[in-house]
Amino acid sequence: MDNNKIRMAMVGGGEGAFIGAIHRIAARLDGQIELVAGVFSRYPKKCLSTGQQLGLDPSRCYHDYETLFREEAQLPQSQRMQFVAIVTPNHLHFPIASAAIKYGFHVLSDKPATLTLAQALMLQNQLSDTHCLYGLTQTYTGYPMVKEARHRIATGALGTVKKIVVEYSQGWLANTNDETSKQASWRLDAKKSGISCCMGDIGVHAANLAEYVSGLEVNALCADLNTVVAGRTLDDDGTVLLRFNNGAKGVLMASQIAVGEENNLKLRIYGEKASIEWAQMEPNNLWLREQNAPAQLIRTGVGNLCPAASKATRTPAGHPEGYLEAFANIYLNFAEMIQAHCQNNAVQNQDFDVPGIKEAVRGMAFIENAVVASAQDTKWHPFTIG
Amino acid sequence: MDNNKIRMAMVGGGEGAFIGAIHRIAARLDGQIELVAGVFSRYPKKCLSTGQQLGLDPSRCYHDYETLFREEAQLPQSQRMQFVAIVTPNHLHFPIASAAIKYGFHVLSDKPATLTLAQALMLQNQLSDTHCLYGLTQTYTGYPMVKEARHRIATGALGTVKKIVVEYSQGWLANTNDETSKQASWRLDAKKSGISCCMGDIGVHAANLAEYVSGLEVNALCADLNTVVAGRTLDDDGTVLLRFNNGAKGVLMASQIAVGEENNLKLRIYGEKASIEWAQMEPNNLWLREQNAPAQLIRTGVGNLCPAASKATRTPAGHPEGYLEAFANIYLNFAEMIQAHCQNNAVQNQDFDVPGIKEAVRGMAFIENAVVASAQDTKWHPFTIG
Amino acid sequence: MDNNKIRMAMVGGGEGAFIGAIHRIAARLDGQIELVAGVFSRYPKKCLSTGQQLGLDPSRCYHDYETLFREEAQLPQSQRMQFVAIVTPNHLHFPIASAAIKYGFHVLSDKPATLTLAQALMLQNQLSDTHCLYGLTQTYTGYPMVKEARHRIATGALGTVKKIVVEYSQGWLANTNDETSKQASWRLDAKKSGISCCMGDIGVHAANLAEYVSGLEVNALCADLNTVVAGRTLDDDGTVLLRFNNGAKGVLMASQIAVGEENNLKLRIYGEKASIEWAQMEPNNLWLREQNAPAQLIRTGVGNLCPAASKATRTPAGHPEGYLEAFANIYLNFAEMIQAHCQNNAVQNQDFDVPGIKEAVRGMAFIENAVVASAQDTKWHPFTIG
Amino acid sequence: MDNNKIRMAMVGGGEGAFIGAIHRIAARLDGQIELVAGVFSRYPKKCLSTGQQLGLDPSRCYHDYETLFREEAQLPQSQRMQFVAIVTPNHLHFPIASAAIKYGFHVLSDKPATLTLAQALMLQNQLSDTHCLYGLTQTYTGYPMVKEARHRIATGALGTVKKIVVEYSQGWLANTNDETSKQASWRLDAKKSGISCCMGDIGVHAANLAEYVSGLEVNALCADLNTVVAGRTLDDDGTVLLRFNNGAKGVLMASQIAVGEENNLKLRIYGEKASIEWAQMEPNNLWLREQNAPAQLIRTGVGNLCPAASKATRTPAGHPEGYLEAFANIYLNFAEMIQAHCQNNAVQNQDFDVPGIKEAVRGMAFIENAVVASAQDTKWHPFTIG
Repeated sequence: MDNNKIRMAMVGGGEGAFIGAIHRIAARLDGQIELVAGVFSRYPKKCLSTGQQLGLDPSRCYHDYETLFREEAQLPQSQRMQFVAIVTPNHLHFPIASAAIKYGFHVLSDKPATLTLAQALMLQNQLSDTHCLYGLTQTYTGYPMVKEARHRIATGALGTVKKIVVEYSQGWLANTNDETSKQASWRLDAKKSGISCCMGDIGVHAANLAEYVSGLEVNALCADLNTVVAGRTLDDDGTVLLRFNNGAKGVLMASQIAVGEENNLKLRIYGEKASIEWAQMEPNNLWLREQNAPAQLIRTGVGNLCPAASKATRTPAGHPEGYLEAFANIYLNFAEMIQAHCQNNAVQNQDFDVPGIKEAVRGMAFIENAVVASAQDTKWHPFTIG
Repeated sequence: MDNNKIRMAMVGGGEGAFIGAIHRIAARLDGQIELVAGVFSRYPKKCLSTGQQLGLDPSRCYHDYETLFREEAQLPQSQRMQFVAIVTPNHLHFPIASAAIKYGFHVLSDKPATLTLAQALMLQNQLSDTHCLYGLTQTYTGYPMVKEARHRIATGALGTVKKIVVEYSQGWLANTNDETSKQASWRLDAKKSGISCCMGDIGVHAANLAEYVSGLEVNALCADLNTVVAGRTLDDDGTVLLRFNNGAKGVLMASQIAVGEENNLKLRIYGEKASIEWAQMEPNNLWLREQNAPAQLIRTGVGNLCPAASKATRTPAGHPEGYLEAFANIYLNFAEMIQAHCQNNAVQNQDFDVPGIKEAVRGMAFIENAVVASAQDTKWHPFTIG
Repeated sequence: MDNNKIRMAMVGGGEGAFIGAIHRIAARLDGQIELVAGVFSRYPKKCLSTGQQLGLDPSRCYHDYETLFREEAQLPQSQRMQFVAIVTPNHLHFPIASAAIKYGFHVLSDKPATLTLAQALMLQNQLSDTHCLYGLTQTYTGYPMVKEARHRIATGALGTVKKIVVEYSQGWLANTNDETSKQASWRLDAKKSGISCCMGDIGVHAANLAEYVSGLEVNALCADLNTVVAGRTLDDDGTVLLRFNNGAKGVLMASQIAVGEENNLKLRIYGEKASIEWAQMEPNNLWLREQNAPAQLIRTGVGNLCPAASKATRTPAGHPEGYLEAFANIYLNFAEMIQAHCQNNAVQNQDFDVPGIKEAVRGMAFIENAVVASAQDTKWHPFTIG
Repeated sequence: MDNNKIRMAMVGGGEGAFIGAIHRIAARLDGQIELVAGVFSRYPKKCLSTGQQLGLDPSRCYHDYETLFREEAQLPQSQRMQFVAIVTPNHLHFPIASAAIKYGFHVLSDKPATLTLAQALMLQNQLSDTHCLYGLTQTYTGYPMVKEARHRIATGALGTVKKIVVEYSQGWLANTNDETSKQASWRLDAKKSGISCCMGDIGVHAANLAEYVSGLEVNALCADLNTVVAGRTLDDDGTVLLRFNNGAKGVLMASQIAVGEENNLKLRIYGEKASIEWAQMEPNNLWLREQNAPAQLIRTGVGNLCPAASKATRTPAGHPEGYLEAFANIYLNFAEMIQAHCQNNAVQNQDFDVPGIKEAVRGMAFIENAVVASAQDTKWHPFTIG
């Protein structure tokens, strides 16, 4: 154990899981975080074998998250875990986060934050009474060019934002037999996934990205969620028309049945004077287009970028960084936030560029508002929280 | 005068006009059509000077379209015009087309076909009683890769179509002072443009493209048309959610205020087995993406393409063809249709791949349905004609 | 016959030919040129049938080029041809051009200008004693973004040019049986093609493009020409290292056996301060990259472009123009040059942006120097003319 | 210390260095390697502070590499370092590697392997007498699509390879004052860098990539190395014409003065039947183009890829991986090679897909042959080793 490093426990992420391994790479990448404990599976043997592969002390591979938190809380402060990374299916996010906070541990949760908006609001309440920190892995905000786009808009490069188009298209759930895969089965099961599959899994990323970059908030929506593959109970596709709080118009498209699409998350924001375009599959490119002028291709590592973008970059120009690095940026910022918190309790998520409970609540509200709006005959629905 | 060529008259397209010059290039490009007469302006001097620049006999530069048709009808059959190309602002399309048909001339009209759906239906009626041919320059269907996409879908490459996303984004009307330009002013004037600017000018192209390539028809819509620039009476932006007659979902986005966009018309169609993507600004590319396989980039002039695509191509692979060639393809097909008609009255638009009165009516219905749907509080509106 | 138009004759370009049809489209596109006479084939029947399809008077479909020039020279000045477009295989370019000039006709020749450098020098001599105009269809200089690149460099955007990389890759001659095609057979036959296939057919375009855009001249070269497909006598691939007259380094790659390449002509010029990149297959893009700054994508029709680029553009931004339009730009400029010549004999090619006899001679010198340099053991060879 | 992990020491990579930090991320990313000791700087204070930031025991932050190896060799086998990562300027690679091997440690060295070919051959000799493993971070071979390209060629997708074009263009040394930067100064100093700057730093990557993917070896070359920026003693640009051992032709271009280029490494290989294209700046794309067929875009994570490519991929399709992951792939493979070696001394680099001493020697030979070939007047120079 390295005393310089922030100590992390993980719940979820046993062998065969996808996102747990990603979180672990992200945590390791910058060498600021050390995995010290975990509950990787509800099956003790699998939990232990995963932990041992990861080099954990077997005594810190716990059978369940309650035990994890209780036992770790008994350890000397210099040894015990400082935060838990939650990488389970959605329905477990809330009880685990809630338990961690009760024991005084910080939380870094995968998205969506909870199973329901009500849970997210309870979590927000619970956090307001503690000094625990909460981070949410809205991964795509970790990309340097996303941060640069946000900076450009905040500093006026576009003028007033008039229109936002955000899309997140995938094709992996296009075939009916995909439910048999581990990744697909829980996402299509409302008990584990919540009231939406497509909006809950990827639409929520698109909505978060649009708000993060624009600095605006959705305040009304018109939704058309679809279940394209027969036999499903949850949506696997949908489009949501948006209104933002400055009057800007928006369109959010998400799909998991768009055959041939890999992970096509793409954002365009049009202002009075200029527009930006960013696509996750070419993440080191940011287009800035002013009226009647050559388009500018802003690139990671080239020229003067904002501090948040520069900090989020590890390599010289032309050496592509990608998804794992974006993920690591959230881990790194969260680790620095915990470090600062050790000196001073009054740290704020926005000062460390870490998505937090506000984004957690808005994400869950987006999902629930979209489902309600889609079910109604009336076109527009106000975006409401709680 | 060349006796081999089809003889064309033009109404509209005087000096300073945009689309008239484009039509003339399209008509000339393949050497099958000869411009023999015209009314290029309501100002006789300007009309004459344009005609003379174009090499016309001054006696066939007429003062108004009634005179054009009446006088031409007096000429020997071997000399007189065979069809009129209508390139005026929208409000004149119907009266000119209607007059041409009365005198027995064929019509090739710019889009949208008329000022109102009612006019389009009248035109349809009028045509049904004559042998006159009618073509509509839905230009984008003239591209070879659009034809190839249509062919692939018709022959089953995608399986059942599940979702269609079509977008047409421009930025040229983003600034308020653009109304002072000749192109902008009439498009933003309901008397000349009709009840919609954005949907009438470009949304109608997007809708037509989606139906042409997919072989499907829109049967319901939910519309959100916007007037983004203050002071305008017509829409300059909008999104329309669609349902197609096979149950497929759709999204149509159009905008004239998307700063930095040039002429971004883009179509994606997702089927059960594969998807296609085509973008007008890279028109010689057609992407075909099957699930879990390398994406295929089908290129104009490479390999085995369908006859309609091959016929629409003039150069070897790698020699880009563009918008003017797509436009010329419609002219060429219309010329061949007239030639065939000279032998046999029973020619059909679809046999010559020429958009016709059916597309004219559906286009006007799209515009009017979108405007009605946008104004209502209820989400969905059936697509109705007449 | 239209008295406003420049009157053209064509030699070559019968049914089945490729480049003749392209020339005719280019000549027609802007409506400034009229084809009035021709020798389309050495077979009189084929010549006549091609001429009739093109709407020519049968009396002006001649059996051979001598007759063409002699007979046309007898016609009244207001009717007779003004220039000849030469679209035959290479070995006929010189005798036809020479004969046309003897009869006082202007010449627009396909490239390479002649079969040998000696012929090109003779042609240059012959022209210097006449008032005849000479144009060479170095087509790729007709693209608006090529002209913009030239303008930017001429006005200092790059600072001193340091390095030029130009490539022209095709794959159509990669398979041995391609010699059976009409296009391939004469290009691989030294009697018709000259001493080089690849350098003569496409390397010469690449060299011309590099000199046109940079404003520099090659003054030494090191060549590696290859015959990749067994059984051929001429090169089908090659690389030429270059030195320019300002000391800049260069690389010219050309290939006809690069399987999978369509018509990949690409130019990059690196200066002290910035670089440009242009690729023929995406011709409406011009990249300008300054050190440590966002790359700029300059687009046809967007913003302030130089007069030569603007004049070479017919459509608004985002409506792609391509190869035929680039070709037509050379025809249009040549027609305007003839028009001006009718007023004043002292017209210069460079004032009308028309490649002329200087480019003809340099092109032939490039081919011959490359072949000599490739055959020698010494690395570098001075670029010599005559 | 984690007993599951391979224990690494590092020489070089103190604060301010570039490549050391990259190596450490690569070593950490997959959690199989632990940094346990190092000499990060010749300044003891800086060495210690870097080590402590990295969480090392201060007693294992050594003053010089001799001490490092000597002291570590004294530690119990279960604790002592297993391999050294060498990330110093070039001139130190050989003495450090040689010393490590003397003490029985494995070596993972940055490229180029040594200062001179003679040193590389000595290293090869030295290794042949030991059981020590040697790896070379020819990073670009770590990309999954590079491995897929190699696999496709090895299994015949291209037929006989006919032509290879490889390019590595950068612009960062275009301005004279760049020598003042830490990265530039040693690379331009022959004492530290060797007899070549551009070929030694990046040309060697291009040559290695071409040989790795094609499975061929260069056997003759014609070189044109340039010093473009005045005042330098080493090359900063160059082109090398190649012949491969199957007769294939090649072109290798490298430049550090290509203003506006970031890290543009690009490989194209043309065979009889098809060609491949890969570019480092879009590393998850691999183009396969067969004659007269749609181009295929093979993507990381999509469809059936070869085992080496699949193993080198950590995320699902559409989640971009980049340079750090490619680097980590070499570290991971080297760690697995060491693990296997612990069981059985007879491991071979090629079985673990780790560039080794053979690549080290060929790389140094490439540099020296290119410099000699460039200096001579004769065009071609045989590729000789020792």
